[in-house]
Amino acid sequence: MKKSLIALAVLAAAGAASAQSSVTLFGVVDVGLQSVRADGSGSVLKMGTGLNSSSRLGFRGTEDLGGGMSASFWLEAGMNYDDGSGQAGPSLNNQAAGAANGGGLSFQRRSTVSLAGNFGELRLGRDYVPSFWNHTVFDPFGTVGSGAATNLRLKLGNSNGIQTTTRASNSIGYFLPGNLGGFYGQFMYAMGENNSNAANSSDGRYTGLRLGYANGPVNVAYSYGQTKVLARNDYKDQSIAGSYNFGSFTLMGQWGQEKLGNATGLGGFTKNSAWMLGGSVPVGAGEIKASYGRAKLDGAAGTPKGSQFAVGYVYNLSKRTAVYTTYSRVSNDAGVGAVFFTGLGASATGTSSSGLDIGLRHNF
Amino acid sequence: MKKSLIALAVLAAAGAASAQSSVTLFGVVDVGLQSVRADGSGSVLKMGTGLNSSSRLGFRGTEDLGGGMSASFWLEAGMNYDDGSGQAGPSLNNQAAGAANGGGLSFQRRSTVSLAGNFGELRLGRDYVPSFWNHTVFDPFGTVGSGAATNLRLKLGNSNGIQTTTRASNSIGYFLPGNLGGFYGQFMYAMGENNSNAANSSDGRYTGLRLGYANGPVNVAYSYGQTKVLARNDYKDQSIAGSYNFGSFTLMGQWGQEKLGNATGLGGFTKNSAWMLGGSVPVGAGEIKASYGRAKLDGAAGTPKGSQFAVGYVYNLSKRTAVYTTYSRVSNDAGVGAVFFTGLGASATGTSSSGLDIGLRHNF
Amino acid sequence: MKKSLIALAVLAAAGAASAQSSVTLFGVVDVGLQSVRADGSGSVLKMGTGLNSSSRLGFRGTEDLGGGMSASFWLEAGMNYDDGSGQAGPSLNNQAAGAANGGGLSFQRRSTVSLAGNFGELRLGRDYVPSFWNHTVFDPFGTVGSGAATNLRLKLGNSNGIQTTTRASNSIGYFLPGNLGGFYGQFMYAMGENNSNAANSSDGRYTGLRLGYANGPVNVAYSYGQTKVLARNDYKDQSIAGSYNFGSFTLMGQWGQEKLGNATGLGGFTKNSAWMLGGSVPVGAGEIKASYGRAKLDGAAGTPKGSQFAVGYVYNLSKRTAVYTTYSRVSNDAGVGAVFFTGLGASATGTSSSGLDIGLRHNF
Repeated sequence: MKKSLIALAVLAAAGAASAQSSVTLFGVVDVGLQSVRADGSGSVLKMGTGLNSSSRLGFRGTEDLGGGMSASFWLEAGMNYDDGSGQAGPSLNNQAAGAANGGGLSFQRRSTVSLAGNFGELRLGRDYVPSFWNHTVFDPFGTVGSGAATNLRLKLGNSNGIQTTTRASNSIGYFLPGNLGGFYGQFMYAMGENNSNAANSSDGRYTGLRLGYANGPVNVAYSYGQTKVLARNDYKDQSIAGSYNFGSFTLMGQWGQEKLGNATGLGGFTKNSAWMLGGSVPVGAGEIKASYGRAKLDGAAGTPKGSQFAVGYVYNLSKRTAVYTTYSRVSNDAGVGAVFFTGLGASATGTSSSGLDIGLRHNF
Repeated sequence: MKKSLIALAVLAAAGAASAQSSVTLFGVVDVGLQSVRADGSGSVLKMGTGLNSSSRLGFRGTEDLGGGMSASFWLEAGMNYDDGSGQAGPSLNNQAAGAANGGGLSFQRRSTVSLAGNFGELRLGRDYVPSFWNHTVFDPFGTVGSGAATNLRLKLGNSNGIQTTTRASNSIGYFLPGNLGGFYGQFMYAMGENNSNAANSSDGRYTGLRLGYANGPVNVAYSYGQTKVLARNDYKDQSIAGSYNFGSFTLMGQWGQEKLGNATGLGGFTKNSAWMLGGSVPVGAGEIKASYGRAKLDGAAGTPKGSQFAVGYVYNLSKRTAVYTTYSRVSNDAGVGAVFFTGLGASATGTSSSGLDIGLRHNF
Repeated sequence: MKKSLIALAVLAAAGAASAQSSVTLFGVVDVGLQSVRADGSGSVLKMGTGLNSSSRLGFRGTEDLGGGMSASFWLEAGMNYDDGSGQAGPSLNNQAAGAANGGGLSFQRRSTVSLAGNFGELRLGRDYVPSFWNHTVFDPFGTVGSGAATNLRLKLGNSNGIQTTTRASNSIGYFLPGNLGGFYGQFMYAMGENNSNAANSSDGRYTGLRLGYANGPVNVAYSYGQTKVLARNDYKDQSIAGSYNFGSFTLMGQWGQEKLGNATGLGGFTKNSAWMLGGSVPVGAGEIKASYGRAKLDGAAGTPKGSQFAVGYVYNLSKRTAVYTTYSRVSNDAGVGAVFFTGLGASATGTSSSGLDIGLRHNF
């Protein structure tokens, strides 16, 4: 994904011979039609955004500090290109949800400043949590559109108002350097910013890590994240996942588990376990993708189970522009009901819902 | 209006020889003083924005896909340069008005992605409705500032909360190609995104078109738009308008009509018919503009009528920068009262209100 | 502070030979840890932003109009890089506080359009008020972070809801030209935009000026600003301040006074007088800064006094990137209590509170 370069801007300042710099404007414009229907609940046809790749608009830049060191920043805003609004504001302290921003642009997908060198990278600000990456890296549909395996995952956290399933504000991140023979890793500590005297002084504090190994066709990783929630007895999300590129196709798999002590959302269940298998096959200028996954809820009445099957096709008009389509179906097993799919509200026991996306994606 | 080019950014990617690209940052900074006064209601002196040309900030780009095809995007935010805020958030589903965005920047003037080729252009996202263009193209004052003929037009729609008088979210637009011997046209379908089972399933659905002919000094066009509103028995706006450039001056004229079945705003009137005649004369580095129009409301008690006279002068300091002034006066006929002018609230029967703008406009 | 240049964009338009133009993207990314503690009130550890230099993101540009004239614009948004949100929306009419913008980006640090020439500069829009500049120019800590002398100043205005202590919307500014032998000056008139018939017709009207002399090592300035507030009997802020660069170090000093007729915030006091002495010493690639100041409140029961001591160190990794730390302590004199420090809420009589910042700042 090549990016448009805003500026060469060689800052030839006296006494700062090494200070070269660039600022890049980048974005993904992804708009498509999405039809979502559930047994007995009608259907909705809408214009969606980010069904193939999350719609965004951002600025980022790097300065060479000399001696192998660099400073950089990254600002990335979520965009709803179907109506021009910015994506809703999240939590500012990793606790209560943020105020609706009524459509204003905000750089809350990522907003970071970094110092990097031989030691790795130190990153401050709002960033993805380490425990999020397995969900998207090892899913042929990423975490977007009707086919994402997160239709069955992160349900405990999201429905109980946990603000750190995907990103955290006020975070200190550390990334291992890139020269460890394929081993990679990152660690994060993020603050809830409460008063030390308060009963909930540690609420919103996130601690997490991700460790992996990528070499040639192999990529595997383990991740774990924990968020302090006094009233909920803490939220934990862990996963192990991997992919193998066989050349003519790529296989992917995930297993993960969420836990939340005193859950109230999603029927009071306290554990969500899920696995997914998927893959992608290049076909000419395009790619076919498919996945199948199952999930199970525990800890309250019954142990509802469900599954998702998804298939998609992406046709590349160029390196930066593609048309795509995805179809997925989420089915609740008979006997015990649970809501897994976020499309059209509750699907009853033994019913299913489906989503169909078709759209156009343009990177810049 | 030349634009600043952010990036040449030749994306010389192997295997994508045709993929050239640019991203442009553009904007209009228009700030001026506006004095509005109405008979018996005092006056307000304020700093306005967009009195000569709508204030905006945007990004847009195009990628050549080869074979006569291109992909492009356009992001345009409305700006209040007098106080630095972004313009208020509109509807996200073409129905209820959007939440106030408290000053956040949002690209809700236009947010689109396009595929273009010999077949014309397919455009997805939030865009101007076809029925809007005649209002601004054939008015010497456009649709901004104290002189705009829309002081007498679009009153039914705007005062009854219709969200598609100017733009629509979730739209699919098609534009005829540019090589039809002067004929041009565009069509739009926009979704309200309601559930198929709901009583108001089609609410917010906009359908419209614009067809015209522009050749040498002549430009004429017809436009029609319809928005589904269950409770209001649908909103319709049509107009026919044209201009002729005589060389030393240009004449313009419009006739248009709005209808709304069960109107409640603006006194319950259900039809607004209006015409306008205007023109502009280049004078040295500047231009003198003037217009006169009348409008009539029907369908409730009385048939209030009113008129507007406007005159203005724009002096160009360069191709991109100008100073301007506009004066206009809206008069309600005696006998029956109606509110046509949006400046200082209701003017009673037989009274009038006036606006005077003076400002500075800079394009980048 | 070199800036990244978005565009050379030579607009070689026929007939506009002088129209050269550039648009610059600029910003400050400043993120750090801040620990604030007060006697008996616990402490808060948080990730702050703008502790060394106000975090921002902006666009600005200039067009050469020929004949010594130029047109320019400046858009600058306040950013919270610790969580990616935009800074809260201020007043749009210099009166009531603006709606919270829920994190949307808005250019409310500065949003102006200018015409400049031999006569000086005429500037329209939202801008800093003249009476603000002495606070930041003559403070080694500027007006940001734990060390700013504004911990003791502007308390009357800010706690009584005055919206023009730092910036004003709807302003007309005039700046003297730069060739007056070291003398400089600026004047501002900003509108509240109320109806002429209303009792509070002049509320929100700001009038102010700043006059100074800068030549070689010397810089001194006087500033005065007045905001009309019917219910509060007007707000006034004046200061006199200066600095002298001795080569190996720089000394700075300020004296200032706020007055507000019918104050209700901050205990009903109507006058705040304060002075500050400070300085900075370059040490290798870094700089040591320190300041001491005292303030006194008058006009209600008692005359509470307090003081602040601050010390800081900035180490420059390059011309654009630095790490920094600041420590400050605000102490209320014994006997009469008053709230001077805004960190952790009220400090009682004779108690103190402290702040410690450590962070990373990157300009682009």
